[in-house]
Amino acid sequence: MTDTDYLQAALEEARQGLAEGGIPIGAVLVHQGTIIGRGHNRRVQQGSAILHGEMDALENAGRQSARVYRESVLYTTLSPCPMCSGAILLYGIPRVVIGENRTFMGDEELLRSRGVAVTVEQNEECIRLMSDFIATRPELWNEDIGV
Amino acid sequence: MTDTDYLQAALEEARQGLAEGGIPIGAVLVHQGTIIGRGHNRRVQQGSAILHGEMDALENAGRQSARVYRESVLYTTLSPCPMCSGAILLYGIPRVVIGENRTFMGDEELLRSRGVAVTVEQNEECIRLMSDFIATRPELWNEDIGV
Repeated sequence: MTDTDYLQAALEEARQGLAEGGIPIGAVLVHQGTIIGRGHNRRVQQGSAILHGEMDALENAGRQSARVYRESVLYTTLSPCPMCSGAILLYGIPRVVIGENRTFMGDEELLRSRGVAVTVEQNEECIRLMSDFIATRPELWNEDIGV
Repeated sequence: MTDTDYLQAALEEARQGLAEGGIPIGAVLVHQGTIIGRGHNRRVQQGSAILHGEMDALENAGRQSARVYRESVLYTTLSPCPMCSGAILLYGIPRVVIGENRTFMGDEELLRSRGVAVTVEQNEECIRLMSDFIATRPELWNEDIGV
């Protein structure tokens, strides 16, 4: 499987979140080619203030040793906010593949400044999904990013 | 109530976590003098990779508007790791009171560099609680901080 395939898995999570009435952001954590955690934003579904897509993927991966994180890649449909970037730094995840950062620019510079390899795909479907969502539910989106 | 009182509430959470067999770190989120979220580390109790004490307090506070966070103070028994620091930045929490940073130095410099007011109490009971725990369960502690 390629980066594109794993990003598609993150997109599936985002679409599932949208179908549940939630915020369409998804992520997968991949350890040596195997998806070990999938997740999507659960603000609406679980009334959660912390389950962004990336956090949900990390949570669903369960307790892992530092070694596993250091051999993993996180794929996310949207540029990771400061909380999710901090989680990436906490666990020393060395590489992050981002669907897009046009609709929201997260803390990519912090990640890069601490040695994380960051790739931004500017995937058209990721952009469309978030653009449509932000236009439809701006107040919910602002709540999710603390604005 | 004073900072010392709120830090004691965070310490109660930490002790409760220890009594549950967990990692003894607690936090409370205080909005204009009222505790709106209490929490403690749930790694052991819930098999959680993301429920550090601060994250658990934020989660238990539920969905809040940006305005509430910007009028709140987070009290935590231990210096906040990069993930918890990122959550503080995401929500624009303007002030953090930390029990101690002797046993673990979190991302306080990042917080300060982004305008968060950070106070470190070096509370003796917070130090003792973590020192004892780290000496007893070093492998569990390392897992919690991605080492």
